Amino acid sequence: MEKIEENNIKQVFGHRVRKIRADKGFSQEALAQEADLDRTYIGGVERGERNISLINIHKIATALGVPIEELFT
Amino acid sequence: MEKIEENNIKQVFGHRVRKIRADKGFSQEALAQEADLDRTYIGGVERGERNISLINIHKIATALGVPIEELFT
Repeated sequence: MEKIEENNIKQVFGHRVRKIRADKGFSQEALAQEADLDRTYIGGVERGERNISLINIHKIATALGVPIEELFT
Repeated sequence: MEKIEENNIKQVFGHRVRKIRADKGFSQEALAQEADLDRTYIGGVERGERNISLINIHKIATALGVPIEELFT
């Protein structure tokens, strides 16, 4: 049960990142470069596979030009 | 320079958790128990020492009864 919830927050977050990235017209590659992260890592985040940390959440928000809270709404 | 920013987001997040926890009248102990995390870990988060992960951010928000985005505003 808890496992499902944990997977769920990762997926919800990943979908949100993917949507904002696409809306901004960024490729995964461009976002990765701007955020100083690996493209495969961004892919894993968007697929809800990564338990991303605060610092990397902050890097992605900054690279996308949105406040962090927008990644959670 | 980047290090300063990284520490800053951890500190901003920690202060926010501490404020909401105090406003809700929770002790660190009570929050830790409700979130199924260690009290010393909560202390470290509030002091801006921990690069907390998405799943633990979610646990803290749920335990505090607030949407995740409220931890970032």
